[in-house]
Amino acid sequence: MEAVLMEYNRVRPEDLKTLATIVGPSDVSSEEYDLVTNALDAFPGEPVLPEAVVWPESSLEVLEILRYASERRIPVTVRGGGTGLAGACTPRLGGIVMNMMKMSKILEVRQLDMQVDVEAGVIYDQLNRELEPLGLFFPPDPASGKSCTIGGMIANNASGLKAVRYGATRDYVLALRVVFPVGLDLHLGSRVFKYSIGYDLARMLVGSEGTLGVITEATLKLRTLPRNRKTIAAYFNSIEDGVKCIGRIRLSGIEPAAIEFIDRTHLRLISEWSGLNLPDYECMIILEFHSYSRAGLEEEVADAVSLLREGGAADLIIPKNEEEAERIWEARRGAYPSILKACRSPIIGDIIVPLSRLLDGVNKAYELARKYEVRVGVMGHLGDGNIHANWLTDRRNRDEWERALKANAELTRYAIEVGGALSAEHGVGVEKKEFMREQHHEALEIMRRLKELFDPNNILNPGTML
Amino acid sequence: MEAVLMEYNRVRPEDLKTLATIVGPSDVSSEEYDLVTNALDAFPGEPVLPEAVVWPESSLEVLEILRYASERRIPVTVRGGGTGLAGACTPRLGGIVMNMMKMSKILEVRQLDMQVDVEAGVIYDQLNRELEPLGLFFPPDPASGKSCTIGGMIANNASGLKAVRYGATRDYVLALRVVFPVGLDLHLGSRVFKYSIGYDLARMLVGSEGTLGVITEATLKLRTLPRNRKTIAAYFNSIEDGVKCIGRIRLSGIEPAAIEFIDRTHLRLISEWSGLNLPDYECMIILEFHSYSRAGLEEEVADAVSLLREGGAADLIIPKNEEEAERIWEARRGAYPSILKACRSPIIGDIIVPLSRLLDGVNKAYELARKYEVRVGVMGHLGDGNIHANWLTDRRNRDEWERALKANAELTRYAIEVGGALSAEHGVGVEKKEFMREQHHEALEIMRRLKELFDPNNILNPGTML
Repeated sequence: MEAVLMEYNRVRPEDLKTLATIVGPSDVSSEEYDLVTNALDAFPGEPVLPEAVVWPESSLEVLEILRYASERRIPVTVRGGGTGLAGACTPRLGGIVMNMMKMSKILEVRQLDMQVDVEAGVIYDQLNRELEPLGLFFPPDPASGKSCTIGGMIANNASGLKAVRYGATRDYVLALRVVFPVGLDLHLGSRVFKYSIGYDLARMLVGSEGTLGVITEATLKLRTLPRNRKTIAAYFNSIEDGVKCIGRIRLSGIEPAAIEFIDRTHLRLISEWSGLNLPDYECMIILEFHSYSRAGLEEEVADAVSLLREGGAADLIIPKNEEEAERIWEARRGAYPSILKACRSPIIGDIIVPLSRLLDGVNKAYELARKYEVRVGVMGHLGDGNIHANWLTDRRNRDEWERALKANAELTRYAIEVGGALSAEHGVGVEKKEFMREQHHEALEIMRRLKELFDPNNILNPGTML
Repeated sequence: MEAVLMEYNRVRPEDLKTLATIVGPSDVSSEEYDLVTNALDAFPGEPVLPEAVVWPESSLEVLEILRYASERRIPVTVRGGGTGLAGACTPRLGGIVMNMMKMSKILEVRQLDMQVDVEAGVIYDQLNRELEPLGLFFPPDPASGKSCTIGGMIANNASGLKAVRYGATRDYVLALRVVFPVGLDLHLGSRVFKYSIGYDLARMLVGSEGTLGVITEATLKLRTLPRNRKTIAAYFNSIEDGVKCIGRIRLSGIEPAAIEFIDRTHLRLISEWSGLNLPDYECMIILEFHSYSRAGLEEEVADAVSLLREGGAADLIIPKNEEEAERIWEARRGAYPSILKACRSPIIGDIIVPLSRLLDGVNKAYELARKYEVRVGVMGHLGDGNIHANWLTDRRNRDEWERALKANAELTRYAIEVGGALSAEHGVGVEKKEFMREQHHEALEIMRRLKELFDPNNILNPGTML
């Protein structure tokens, strides 16, 4: 790491002056408050302070910053809402944090086209609030929707609760405006729903975690809001029964918008935190259904309920109204805050396995918890294979923390071995960098050569991902 | 072009011997019959004969062929079913055609995973026949499904009738095995439904038209077969009324599996060719509905029928049974053969525009037909913006042929200007190469540099796409 560090220059006072001429004096800072609040995301890593923070307000400003930093060899780490769970936007080598929050305009909603153009700093929930009166929405539904940015979602291929039916962010990116350190400000892709026009550079940028270029604008495909929704939940006395139901529902042809799994550990934490007083079962499965037709919705729900009953559900909650449904989602939303309440520095896991390995994958997490003597809670978007094994630990307890890290690492390796992936939706960042070779083998070299092509001086998010 | 040609070597007798040691003597040929049948796809270009044809049977053979050809600087053009409409698999500079039809094994269907692994030469319809008993299918539905290969579909990001609901080939590619001329045989992507694991190399290969590497195997996501289907059709006395209905249906929340448009010119050609005796209207719109629930299906159909009536439909066909529905699709399937019957060398157009420009785009085709005094028939997958303006001409009538080419070129430029794309599903190939600069501007240089990274000696499909 030392060798790499030596290649970069630190931000000097004259650099701050130049940055001020580019973005204006109020949009650059080296004050401690700004450095500290731009040092970390939601990954519990060791903080490294940046030396400066800039808030560009246009693609042109981004271009000038990148040109200057590339020439001067100053690291630039791009930051959206700072909600990432893998440390992808943390300035590992200091330098400049480019905070995109001032590029927060919804540029154009084209209702007839079912598209929207946004700047990278637009917040997910804000976008959907603007779209709702038009009957449209942008479906990927990350748990951090209140504060994550569209640019960050694209950079991480974020997804969440609704991916099982609607797909991930990648599936909604039609075109991007991206600024590269080689001095290019390019429009990639096209504002149409499908195309066959050469290499798909726009989608190659999806999931690139700020290492290739800075996404400044995006054109997103939208969907029509479902006219009818229904949520149900089922409790099981056996993890096996619960997980097996998920596979059966997937193959039945029913297409729920969400298929969530929460285990006993999480149910208890949620109960304690929220006061919801959830019953004590091995696991809970939540299903949400979306449909154009009320009658169609009822048929899907009825058939899912039958599958759950046949599959051994010990208790079913079939809400009679929106409020009762809301209480189920309130429990689900309580999962993350309840973990934070229960332990100081949880390690939030994120793997994905093929559907046939779901039960195996969940059991593997428990097995590793026993092996390494750490507490784990398992939940996840199991409908698409995405397991969150959350290790309940405290980094002040150094020994336990190390064991939890080992358990998470072994689970990640397991996911890769069974044909899955080191991350479904949280990304690589700092956290999963060490597994990239096992995931990609020789293809990792190709990625590094791609990075060189776009960012020859390696100024963008150095020390993360690759 | 001369300069480029000089860089390549021709296939000599000793090259044929080496190729025979790689693939076996029965899998290499320089016989005229094989050269002629591997010279063209469905694009009416001037044939250039290859000097040899090889039929590899494994990724290892592909690797050895590419290594040898790269070292010897012999062009290699990858060929699937030869059904492409843009000349993407035609050996513009001679050399070797690598015909993938012997890599035609369905390697593994994993029902519980809802995935299939195939070799590149598997035929689309064959795959879906194998999947049907399991209740699964691979949705992109190209008109050439009877003979196109999965590898070719991936290389062109093929789609078709069902893309409006199910998306294009890109949306189903999870992982690829790709052999690169730099001597790499790589597994890209992962066998799970979503991932955030660095640059998405697998999807970057989708649409690369054989210019970066040879796709030898693919893992595809599958969907459950719809339990209920229904087809309806509507005739209109006005193109405007018909096209406007499409936009209204898209925004209504109804999600048909197909939204097809056929104009009067095509209706007449189909009638003449098929004897179906279709009524004489300005245009026809065909809708197919898929649903888990019969009741849900009926509601969607009823609401679509109301929208069509309110939108001015002059006649509605609501089939009472499968046979009546089949007759509608028989008409649609007759479109392409009826064109071939009506004129010797039609130019099959393929553009895509934002939904708000649908009517404008269709009218533009007619305007250009008048301007250039050529016959045009317009049809397409209008539900997603994909317009096929088909120029009915004969290349023996040199003057008319040139005018048709000009009309098609002007329509392609129009699509790019309104934010659309030079091709929705047929690809760039030889046909649309000239528009790549207008589509991509400076991003075209990035594509060329990517090509250099993977294929430094430019042996793969030279003279096409870029």
